[in-house]
Amino acid sequence: MIKKEKPKERFSYDPKKIVKKLEEIGNQIYEAVREGRNPYIDVPTRGISNIYYDKKSKLIKMGKQTSRRYFLHVAHARKFMQTLLIASYIKRLVSEGKHASLREAYYANKHSIGGSKENTFEDQSESNPIIEDLERTLGVLREEMHITADRRGYIYGDITIQDGEDEFNTSRLGMGGWAVPGTVEHLKFTQINVDYALVVETAAMADRLIEEKFPKKQNALIIATQGQASRGVRRLIHRLHYEEGLPIIVFTDGDPYGWYIYSTIKQGSINLAYLSDKLATPGAKFVGMTMDDIKRYGLERVTEKLKGVPPNKKGGPTADYKRILEEMEYPWFQNKEWQRQFKLALKLGVRIEQQALAHKSLEFVAKEYLPEKIANEELLP
Amino acid sequence: MIKKEKPKERFSYDPKKIVKKLEEIGNQIYEAVREGRNPYIDVPTRGISNIYYDKKSKLIKMGKQTSRRYFLHVAHARKFMQTLLIASYIKRLVSEGKHASLREAYYANKHSIGGSKENTFEDQSESNPIIEDLERTLGVLREEMHITADRRGYIYGDITIQDGEDEFNTSRLGMGGWAVPGTVEHLKFTQINVDYALVVETAAMADRLIEEKFPKKQNALIIATQGQASRGVRRLIHRLHYEEGLPIIVFTDGDPYGWYIYSTIKQGSINLAYLSDKLATPGAKFVGMTMDDIKRYGLERVTEKLKGVPPNKKGGPTADYKRILEEMEYPWFQNKEWQRQFKLALKLGVRIEQQALAHKSLEFVAKEYLPEKIANEELLP
Repeated sequence: MIKKEKPKERFSYDPKKIVKKLEEIGNQIYEAVREGRNPYIDVPTRGISNIYYDKKSKLIKMGKQTSRRYFLHVAHARKFMQTLLIASYIKRLVSEGKHASLREAYYANKHSIGGSKENTFEDQSESNPIIEDLERTLGVLREEMHITADRRGYIYGDITIQDGEDEFNTSRLGMGGWAVPGTVEHLKFTQINVDYALVVETAAMADRLIEEKFPKKQNALIIATQGQASRGVRRLIHRLHYEEGLPIIVFTDGDPYGWYIYSTIKQGSINLAYLSDKLATPGAKFVGMTMDDIKRYGLERVTEKLKGVPPNKKGGPTADYKRILEEMEYPWFQNKEWQRQFKLALKLGVRIEQQALAHKSLEFVAKEYLPEKIANEELLP
Repeated sequence: MIKKEKPKERFSYDPKKIVKKLEEIGNQIYEAVREGRNPYIDVPTRGISNIYYDKKSKLIKMGKQTSRRYFLHVAHARKFMQTLLIASYIKRLVSEGKHASLREAYYANKHSIGGSKENTFEDQSESNPIIEDLERTLGVLREEMHITADRRGYIYGDITIQDGEDEFNTSRLGMGGWAVPGTVEHLKFTQINVDYALVVETAAMADRLIEEKFPKKQNALIIATQGQASRGVRRLIHRLHYEEGLPIIVFTDGDPYGWYIYSTIKQGSINLAYLSDKLATPGAKFVGMTMDDIKRYGLERVTEKLKGVPPNKKGGPTADYKRILEEMEYPWFQNKEWQRQFKLALKLGVRIEQQALAHKSLEFVAKEYLPEKIANEELLP
């Protein structure tokens, strides 16, 4: 039986903390200027060399390397100026309780530098890394700094959410469900009447489960990611697991892309390694689709061929085959259950979609497949 | 001033009608078989030759050409069988009040044919056209036949929707808004307290307007399409306009992709021409971004170059330039306002994003740009 766990984290959103951290940086620079020293900021180094897999916490993490960014340095001055511009913009956003997208932050800070023809930013590829640097330096999510990520995904189930002055139950919104906003930091979960959250890759499958009344019958919250989970959805999953003790079960297509979606929810991604402890949910488990499902449920006729060239053929491995071989190497997939899946996929040379279960019947996934697997805890780690 | 219009259509969803239409086809075939005739179905011809722009209704429409699909005909038999399989599946869906995605419909009907090794369908590219044929033949939306389209988009504003047993106001769902489902046929609008609907291309801009309390201050419903509008969103816009008399104002990026989004909402698309009268909204108007906005609001520094090669350069026109030249030829863009926009874009060689308005200030779009333009009806046709 899937049971709720004891919460391990508490609601932590506090705009005052962010403003304080930014002021500390500002003061430090101000002091340096006043004392005639060359002001600098220490920014954790980006790149794979400063990233490692922490076995204990089971997270991809950022190491301790930093690099110093000076004001009076030909190679640093532009980035230093940009960092201060963005930091000051973020302080204003957070103080005023406003949010901006990455793109808005870029447009708002793009202007000429007084007395020159130089622009502060030439394009967004200059401002995005500065925002990432600030995330690394301050150890906070960009959402906590009121820079919102692109949104995607919706939820449906018997939980009550408070968002500002509004309070609503996400099981009473017809077939639509609640659209998850880019920033979920400020949400409060005032009531949770579900036993677990089922994270579903495709909208079509989430809608199938809603139509079959799965959320009510199984006491589950449905979280539809609509492809790769957005940052908002990943943070929501993390918060529901660690602040509310909700078990997280992931349901994707049985292919390298689906498994990668699971991997990102569970362990975080390499380019956001420094945020794993806020975005990732190592406690998540995987219900399907697995390669074993094909034989077990007689789905042989509704599989599809893997794309690309197998490793033992000329020019291989490419596409799906290459992806599977890469995923086999991930530290968190070093267990017999997942290695078995990857080997089976390579051997059979096929993939299987969530919606292929409709071959049995439309109800099958909601009435047999998921309830049985979840009740028996037939889940991959 | 933007005013509500008198409704021109009524709530029309009636599953019984669909079942009846399917039964008529079934009976006709049954009779033919009984009488020893070769059974057939008349399917409207697909392709550009059977499509025209109807100036009066201002819609892309399907012509009257049909082709006859016989059972006893080597070239028709497979498609005939597939059509009957899908028609019978749809009858079951509608009778049972269930919905299926295109993919589920494919998987559910893929099986071997008794006594042979032949499959009913080899892949989804065989089943999708059959469903489109049925839409054409019956003159109904696939959503009315309970085949759901992929969903995307959300709405926010003071309207109350009834969806099955649930009734909710889409302005009381925090920053999230209501996720628009794939099928909106069955929705009832029990209360509409807004003066118009603003259809917004990007989620970031929709979220900006929600944060600025634009929906409340301007009495507007926000419809975020998140890129090209999904079928569900297009049908929702159509229903709000024709059944509820709500003026529709579209707000996209100032680039060929944004203008194409507007074009699709307004006039329908070529491959769905046969559905224009249910999916398109010729009464929609366009607020921006226009090429004139650049000078008027001093946005010269935050434009971007058009992609591709201009028509007068070697190898041109490509990409954006090619797209603009194509759009200039659309029958519904044959007016001086739109021709001016296209010519200006080609002359300036730039595009302008919605979010570039953040260059003025975050509030600017919600407090000045949109309210002024809409109050003065500075809208393109």
